[in-house]
Amino acid sequence: MSKIWTVYLSGEIHTDWRARIAEAAADLPLVFTAPNVDHASSDACGAEILGAEPDPFWHDHKAAKINAIRTLTLIREADVVVVRFGDKYRQWNAAFDAGMAAALGKPLITLHDPALRHPLKEVDAAALATAREPEDVARILKYVITGAL
Amino acid sequence: MSKIWTVYLSGEIHTDWRARIAEAAADLPLVFTAPNVDHASSDACGAEILGAEPDPFWHDHKAAKINAIRTLTLIREADVVVVRFGDKYRQWNAAFDAGMAAALGKPLITLHDPALRHPLKEVDAAALATAREPEDVARILKYVITGAL
Amino acid sequence: MSKIWTVYLSGEIHTDWRARIAEAAADLPLVFTAPNVDHASSDACGAEILGAEPDPFWHDHKAAKINAIRTLTLIREADVVVVRFGDKYRQWNAAFDAGMAAALGKPLITLHDPALRHPLKEVDAAALATAREPEDVARILKYVITGAL
Amino acid sequence: MSKIWTVYLSGEIHTDWRARIAEAAADLPLVFTAPNVDHASSDACGAEILGAEPDPFWHDHKAAKINAIRTLTLIREADVVVVRFGDKYRQWNAAFDAGMAAALGKPLITLHDPALRHPLKEVDAAALATAREPEDVARILKYVITGAL
Amino acid sequence: MSKIWTVYLSGEIHTDWRARIAEAAADLPLVFTAPNVDHASSDACGAEILGAEPDPFWHDHKAAKINAIRTLTLIREADVVVVRFGDKYRQWNAAFDAGMAAALGKPLITLHDPALRHPLKEVDAAALATAREPEDVARILKYVITGAL
Amino acid sequence: MSKIWTVYLSGEIHTDWRARIAEAAADLPLVFTAPNVDHASSDACGAEILGAEPDPFWHDHKAAKINAIRTLTLIREADVVVVRFGDKYRQWNAAFDAGMAAALGKPLITLHDPALRHPLKEVDAAALATAREPEDVARILKYVITGAL
Amino acid sequence: MSKIWTVYLSGEIHTDWRARIAEAAADLPLVFTAPNVDHASSDACGAEILGAEPDPFWHDHKAAKINAIRTLTLIREADVVVVRFGDKYRQWNAAFDAGMAAALGKPLITLHDPALRHPLKEVDAAALATAREPEDVARILKYVITGAL
Amino acid sequence: MSKIWTVYLSGEIHTDWRARIAEAAADLPLVFTAPNVDHASSDACGAEILGAEPDPFWHDHKAAKINAIRTLTLIREADVVVVRFGDKYRQWNAAFDAGMAAALGKPLITLHDPALRHPLKEVDAAALATAREPEDVARILKYVITGAL
Repeated sequence: MSKIWTVYLSGEIHTDWRARIAEAAADLPLVFTAPNVDHASSDACGAEILGAEPDPFWHDHKAAKINAIRTLTLIREADVVVVRFGDKYRQWNAAFDAGMAAALGKPLITLHDPALRHPLKEVDAAALATAREPEDVARILKYVITGAL
Repeated sequence: MSKIWTVYLSGEIHTDWRARIAEAAADLPLVFTAPNVDHASSDACGAEILGAEPDPFWHDHKAAKINAIRTLTLIREADVVVVRFGDKYRQWNAAFDAGMAAALGKPLITLHDPALRHPLKEVDAAALATAREPEDVARILKYVITGAL
Repeated sequence: MSKIWTVYLSGEIHTDWRARIAEAAADLPLVFTAPNVDHASSDACGAEILGAEPDPFWHDHKAAKINAIRTLTLIREADVVVVRFGDKYRQWNAAFDAGMAAALGKPLITLHDPALRHPLKEVDAAALATAREPEDVARILKYVITGAL
Repeated sequence: MSKIWTVYLSGEIHTDWRARIAEAAADLPLVFTAPNVDHASSDACGAEILGAEPDPFWHDHKAAKINAIRTLTLIREADVVVVRFGDKYRQWNAAFDAGMAAALGKPLITLHDPALRHPLKEVDAAALATAREPEDVARILKYVITGAL
Repeated sequence: MSKIWTVYLSGEIHTDWRARIAEAAADLPLVFTAPNVDHASSDACGAEILGAEPDPFWHDHKAAKINAIRTLTLIREADVVVVRFGDKYRQWNAAFDAGMAAALGKPLITLHDPALRHPLKEVDAAALATAREPEDVARILKYVITGAL
Repeated sequence: MSKIWTVYLSGEIHTDWRARIAEAAADLPLVFTAPNVDHASSDACGAEILGAEPDPFWHDHKAAKINAIRTLTLIREADVVVVRFGDKYRQWNAAFDAGMAAALGKPLITLHDPALRHPLKEVDAAALATAREPEDVARILKYVITGAL
Repeated sequence: MSKIWTVYLSGEIHTDWRARIAEAAADLPLVFTAPNVDHASSDACGAEILGAEPDPFWHDHKAAKINAIRTLTLIREADVVVVRFGDKYRQWNAAFDAGMAAALGKPLITLHDPALRHPLKEVDAAALATAREPEDVARILKYVITGAL
Repeated sequence: MSKIWTVYLSGEIHTDWRARIAEAAADLPLVFTAPNVDHASSDACGAEILGAEPDPFWHDHKAAKINAIRTLTLIREADVVVVRFGDKYRQWNAAFDAGMAAALGKPLITLHDPALRHPLKEVDAAALATAREPEDVARILKYVITGAL
């Protein structure tokens, strides 16, 4: 009857970092949650389900709000929130998720290349760990849950 | 004895948008708060006050945490949070502030060029208004407080 | 240094009920707050400030969200929320405000004709008083603040 | 061990919209909750259980409060709240539920005919999606939970 | 997978009202919780476990605090709180529990003889139902959970 | 600019204990708040303002709810809550206020004769001080505010 | 389907007090949680997983924050928090945990030798029980859960 | 109308660190609050006001709870909490205050000699700054409030 930890994996969707964490942590009592990581459906969901919008602002708005139903709910019920930043794209949604996690008092782990240190200093300041590789996150989770290094 | 509204102005520090809002809203019962907008002292405060760090990560960490004493406090007591995104730099701290404001239930106004629409769609989805020019924000505040367009 | 009570007056905007409460309670330590009660600007504010929308849904959406900056803020800081229902129009915003006030734990006073009893039974069930005339609300406020009937 | 989502279906009780959502979402990990949707018992419960009241206000009051034991509890533990408005009746309880859901930070989906757009603009402004048909709600839930369109 | 409701039964410990509710509600998805209803151990627990106290105030204090570990925990996780008042003894602990339940936003049901109406008016004012017999409480719970009268 | 402490004085209304505290603490930066302590108007307010009720339950109910507008508001904004129990009457409203104060995390001081120790043990267990005389409460407030015994 | 109680065991890691509680409470519906009680890995985890730090402050900082992911999460979801103080070492982390538990409203049990009474008076003042031996804690838990002494 | 910051100064009472911060920050818009820093009255207040206790545990308990009325209230309304640790005494109350401040989300500054680094690592991990000298704290406050180094 040991606790199952729920870990939300926010941010960058173009590399296999989620799979690498999951693989490295495969034998731990963990449930991973995440946003929809398929870029195409994530952009299209509003128009597909609720009707097309000629104005791209409202096209995006409808999609972003439907995605928020998922992200808000899963962030709120996560034990730990991991946010990954890559070196491409704006990734403001990742930083937004980190801000929400911080304000909700969720333990936050950031995952990024050291080269991103300076622009991420405010986000890292709110984190309980800043990791470089997905496997480091898995090691943190292993240690946190089991006490074993 | 009418209410004094407190408005936190987060984000971009390289243009005069804060001054433009303040000027356009000069006759309203408003107090504007903001992070330290001086880039140099904002980066140096940790090392200056608490001692130099050879590792740039900890140099930034000490500064970012001291800055957080101010930003956390002022965001929490704001009535409205305005977050401005420019087209340069990563600006993850701006998106982080927006996420905190959203999780705290603060009315959020975003301010950015329409060209940034797509990467900001998740942030805009949490906002009660998305403005293009600082003067638009001032008009919103005027209308919200006085009812006059 | 006696307490100044803040009372939010939500709902119907077509009769002079707010003025009647204010007049009947003129000598009490009260601040009344309210939504923008001008129908025209309340509908137009989004398009006026942030640009016209061809689709009436988004036209209304932009306006409603700007109005929410005011209503959310003022309901949250009210000591007491009064919600008035008339016999015309849908007035779903009034019931919405009442639901927010109830969930926030605000003391709620409803004000309506007895003929509306049945459709308002869920709202009245959450209220600490149901009054028929604006002057009754003023008498309640006088009694609550001063103890005098 | 995937998450079971709890979705509260508030509002209109005269059409089969709840059944249509449930059918369209039959294979999803969902639990639907709702108020008592039987009009007769919903009105009679107070008098039936706790004794008749000659005054119709108290007759309704006793019933509405007993119903609130259910609705308050289920709204508070819902992941998502769907509120349906029809074109008949006052339906202030539906808007009241929406206001509670909004104040509690619940993701809100509204469901109504476009003809009701204007009087529902404040409620829609607080929603993360506004759907026209029950099957649209089911599609949103499917997408939110599975990521599939 | 229907919801199991947790109902805390606070107050009077000299009659069989808890058993009567449990019997009348035997086939419902309910878990009943309660304080320790054995008067002797409830008074003695502090001295028995942590050592005797010559001063009766501290004797009682140690016991009351240990009992609070249970009552606080169970009230906080209850869906519904029922508080029963009899006509003997001071029963201030019952009213105290009702105050806690009200402040925590728990749906509250009071159970007492109509003769106690006047001194209980403030407690009843915070309740969603005031019942006379334990079987009435069971009927309320049945209706709330199943919708059947 | 020293802090003004707000102290809510709940409970017994038949002796001059409030005046005795106020007199003994006359030179401290204190604001005392209290329920309406006039028994007659406290009972009559519902019927007087909102109309007579033939059923004494609803007569009392209307009054108790109007009084709750005051008591809820003032308890929530108090720094300290003092609850006085006398040896007459049921005084369940006093214990109810104490329960609310405890659940809201307010520092609680109880004031009663030692003879009431046993029935008040649960209430005293939640208090930070249990005083015998009103002047003791004034001494506590003086010490808390100034540090002087 | 009786409740499983979760009890967090904070503090001193050099004696077998956790095992003694667990043994004495072996047949109760209890889950015990705790920080990592291995001193070596607790100190080394930051450097081991995220890289060595030449400055001992940051060495400790990285470790302490990773440990906080576990302690924060487990304290927040505990029903009861037990904090044990020994007579060696500073044990400020134990007192820190007690302060967090108190602010979160968790029922707190302290466990220490009477000789530590005076320096622990503020911590004991926030506790619902102060025990001397681990077996006393087990007896409290048994009584709280089952009502049996 | 600039904000007045409230800073609670917790911990060690044997040196003049509070005066040194106040002097170094004399021209800032700051209000400093603190526990009663007089050791003798802090220990004696319970017995002096509410009567002597033969058992030293209850002697201390009464005093500690009266002191908690002050400390709880002032910590809760502080903008920033500073906790000072010296090298003498147990100082568990200081760590307890730090834990409360952390759980309440207050920006926390610790102040101690580097020699105390290791035993304070969990407390420092929750702090936004760790200072060595009182004047460093004053510099942090000056920078936080004015932006000037």
